[in-house]
Amino acid sequence: MKTISHNLKIIPLGGLGEVGRNMTLLEYEGKILILDMGFRMPEEGMPGVDYIVPNTSYLKGKENNILGVVFTHGHYDHIGAIPYLIKKIWRPDLQFFASPLTKGIILKREDEFPNLPHLKVNEVRNGSKIKLGVFQVEFFRQNHNIPDNLGLFIRTPIGNIIDTSDFKFDPNPVNDLPTDFQKLRAFGREGVLLLMSDSTGAEEENHSLSEKTIEENLEEIFKRSSGRIIAATFASLINRIQQIISLSEKYGRHVAMEGYSMKSNVEICRILGYIKSKRGTIISTKETHKYPDSKITILCTGAQGEADAALMRIAQKDHRFLRLRKGDSVILSSSVIPGNERTVQILKDNILRQGVKVFHYKMMDIHAGGHAQQEELIEMIKMIRPKFFLPIHGQYSMLVSHAQLALEAGVPEKNVIVAENGQIINLNQKRILIEKGEAPSSYVMVDGLGIGDVGEIVLRDRHMLAKDGMFVIVAIVDKQTGKVRGSPDIISRGFVYLRESKDLLKETRKKVIGIINEITTEGGAVNWTYVKDELRNRVGEFLFQKTRRRPMVLPVVIEV
Amino acid sequence: MKTISHNLKIIPLGGLGEVGRNMTLLEYEGKILILDMGFRMPEEGMPGVDYIVPNTSYLKGKENNILGVVFTHGHYDHIGAIPYLIKKIWRPDLQFFASPLTKGIILKREDEFPNLPHLKVNEVRNGSKIKLGVFQVEFFRQNHNIPDNLGLFIRTPIGNIIDTSDFKFDPNPVNDLPTDFQKLRAFGREGVLLLMSDSTGAEEENHSLSEKTIEENLEEIFKRSSGRIIAATFASLINRIQQIISLSEKYGRHVAMEGYSMKSNVEICRILGYIKSKRGTIISTKETHKYPDSKITILCTGAQGEADAALMRIAQKDHRFLRLRKGDSVILSSSVIPGNERTVQILKDNILRQGVKVFHYKMMDIHAGGHAQQEELIEMIKMIRPKFFLPIHGQYSMLVSHAQLALEAGVPEKNVIVAENGQIINLNQKRILIEKGEAPSSYVMVDGLGIGDVGEIVLRDRHMLAKDGMFVIVAIVDKQTGKVRGSPDIISRGFVYLRESKDLLKETRKKVIGIINEITTEGGAVNWTYVKDELRNRVGEFLFQKTRRRPMVLPVVIEV
Repeated sequence: MKTISHNLKIIPLGGLGEVGRNMTLLEYEGKILILDMGFRMPEEGMPGVDYIVPNTSYLKGKENNILGVVFTHGHYDHIGAIPYLIKKIWRPDLQFFASPLTKGIILKREDEFPNLPHLKVNEVRNGSKIKLGVFQVEFFRQNHNIPDNLGLFIRTPIGNIIDTSDFKFDPNPVNDLPTDFQKLRAFGREGVLLLMSDSTGAEEENHSLSEKTIEENLEEIFKRSSGRIIAATFASLINRIQQIISLSEKYGRHVAMEGYSMKSNVEICRILGYIKSKRGTIISTKETHKYPDSKITILCTGAQGEADAALMRIAQKDHRFLRLRKGDSVILSSSVIPGNERTVQILKDNILRQGVKVFHYKMMDIHAGGHAQQEELIEMIKMIRPKFFLPIHGQYSMLVSHAQLALEAGVPEKNVIVAENGQIINLNQKRILIEKGEAPSSYVMVDGLGIGDVGEIVLRDRHMLAKDGMFVIVAIVDKQTGKVRGSPDIISRGFVYLRESKDLLKETRKKVIGIINEITTEGGAVNWTYVKDELRNRVGEFLFQKTRRRPMVLPVVIEV
Repeated sequence: MKTISHNLKIIPLGGLGEVGRNMTLLEYEGKILILDMGFRMPEEGMPGVDYIVPNTSYLKGKENNILGVVFTHGHYDHIGAIPYLIKKIWRPDLQFFASPLTKGIILKREDEFPNLPHLKVNEVRNGSKIKLGVFQVEFFRQNHNIPDNLGLFIRTPIGNIIDTSDFKFDPNPVNDLPTDFQKLRAFGREGVLLLMSDSTGAEEENHSLSEKTIEENLEEIFKRSSGRIIAATFASLINRIQQIISLSEKYGRHVAMEGYSMKSNVEICRILGYIKSKRGTIISTKETHKYPDSKITILCTGAQGEADAALMRIAQKDHRFLRLRKGDSVILSSSVIPGNERTVQILKDNILRQGVKVFHYKMMDIHAGGHAQQEELIEMIKMIRPKFFLPIHGQYSMLVSHAQLALEAGVPEKNVIVAENGQIINLNQKRILIEKGEAPSSYVMVDGLGIGDVGEIVLRDRHMLAKDGMFVIVAIVDKQTGKVRGSPDIISRGFVYLRESKDLLKETRKKVIGIINEITTEGGAVNWTYVKDELRNRVGEFLFQKTRRRPMVLPVVIEV
């Protein structure tokens, strides 16, 4: 028997209680609309993991009920999980909807995954309306730091729902029109049952900085610099990239690009017309030596101090062509992502040691986040006047803070819900509640070609290996005598420096022989599992006594 | 031939270009005075490493020339390396000098290292003068966030030198007298050849917050809270601990302490009179249930989200006695140490999920750093009016920023030097310069009982193991036939989840047999090194193709 609910279910599979991995399901009478499919970066304690993607187990067996997938914008925390999840939801007739730039980025990424099915992406724009089952989705322009970002106004049988997408209000955006407040107010007048709004900036006071302020400050640096300007930012910060190109043109500088993702994004944007530059502005890095330093801007990745990114390679003198020199000015036009503070410090110090000037966001406003802060969030709620409010996108503390703002904006407490990934939010015209059951929402980790195969056990082993290394013992035991033959082999890495630990290894070998011979001479059938356990425990204890370290001890005993 | 210099050498072995590990040598005519012996915490990429201590190779062979060791204060970044370095510089008659609290902390720590020589620590106070060879050291009171902090005014044959110690100017300190500006001015009048000043706050604008402001804000929380107050701070922040105890007394709360280092520090301070509490204020955690929640403060470690510290255990429901409950207020009275942002976020979220209020320094001023900021640093330089200036303590960017402040304060550019660890700064009355030679200053890592044995190779292996795990192949080869006997053993951890990778393992075994048999049937003497190299490379490549991961492949081939 199928249970059919006349309520609407909202099921966040990611993005609640975390930054990134945004993916939400809207389910009505068993039919499902998917909003975004993003990934997030791994946490600190996940060595080797490339990304974390949403858990789509809930969709298993419901593939034919998926009405379509709608994307808000082209950042990887909203589209990055597509290649890892697409096979799980694939149907040849499954339809995808995205703005032209978002579509461009999605399709470009397909090149990296030649074996995956090719997506059918329909273009939508500000004002586009599409019908997917009972849902009518109207797309509307929202300011962010990438062009072509669309909020979603979704008409459903029980009422209208808004997903703001990532957004901020910017009266002077770059390469974009200002927020369409009239339209937001019109949505409010039409009536909104539920507002789902971006919480990333909910702990930040006041109003986000306008890109105009950023531009003015960046221009100050351009005015004052007589050497090269090396500007690092995120490859996804298309609007910042445009600002730096425009300023370079204004001050007669050519722009060379460094970093694969930067080049790739700029290429798509130029083809689609989202980045504008004059003929001759963009040159290759090799051509930079043809011009005086005062006519050169290098636009590059690596503002977070990422080890492999262009700026770090330049700063560490590992770059093929580029070296820093006195007179250069380095601009770090990005905030520091939590957890990257140390690497950014290393980067800054490396640059300063070479006598080069560094400008960063703590010194002056040369970076603005892409997310609405408290004033804007309250303003959004006041314009939309939703009956119910669900904070989305952000750490739990941000969701809590955003819920508090909703109360300040006049939403009654019982109509505000702080939910978590996997919770099933049940909504009708009268009330909002969290159902008892949950959709699976545990991390699905991507490591190389493996999607979801790295779990607790593998990670725990990696931690142990990282902390104290490993210690493999290979002993050959004579079947006849039960005695160890020759000297056991020891393979150890990450534990001690072997060349300087010969005595320790010698003692350990003796210990191994002693343990095995002690057990095997007891007579009777030998329990090899017991032998191995004894080796693991007693050798482990011995090594700990000698070193206060606990390498992973792995015994191999072979009878010949 | 011995070269004797009539110049003074200043040799920073740690603390320049980093936060922590402070240790500086003053050398005159071959005689050496040591200032502080601190450690620092490992960087992110150093799994398993406990601490990093200064490299004391420069002192090798010069042990008899050490005049003595002088400590500024009791924080581990100034005294923590003693147990790891003491054997390298030990002489039964070697003298140590420290304030009573610093001495107390040093001696308490000796308990953890029963096999080390017992230190002879002479007590010094504000105004104490000691003579060590040609050096006369006068100690003077400096505000910081631990009591009994002493700056050093050192009279030398070429002129006077000041080491400020960690400091800030606080007109309303806790448990302490305000800065003695008169004395600082008197030093200035006597004449200072070189000022070495704390740079930790050199990138922060304005003036550091007074502890009085902190106290007022903390008091607001005490006034408003009707449930338990759980206040987390650093165990070394003795003055903050005193504030919370005093406020608890004012609001009729008993204080229970959680966290080994917190209890231990409070014990020393109470014995020595540096923390004052009324009889009955301090209770054990077990006694807390005897009182209503409104009468309880829990003072604990773990404000950085450290996994093993008290607060994290409480928040994660792992603590033996304490669970959070609604109505509790958690105060995080500390800044976030760079690199800890993510763990602090996890901590905050865990607490908020339990419906408990969290107060942290970004919401209100409930924490002040212990370091002078730009205004104070300039003021210090203006009072001392040194001829030469050397910024100490801090990341390279902080030293650069501090040097800039010195210029603003009127020190000529040629008299300001930004130096790095291991550089030998040569000073006389006329000039300051950096010598060509360097003292060794590479990291000495402490891991368990090993001091300095973990180096590049061990760390590189730990990284590789952490990222993709390891893959040991054990193959037995028949001496007669050269063929592999039976099926090779595979021991793998941290690579794939073995239970779900049976096919991969089977294929790999086949591959191993193929590789070995291929080589050994070529006839002639078998080069086993070559066999192992082939196994490593070809199995490694095979696994990479299958998984896009590169575990450390370790082949063991045994002939029987």
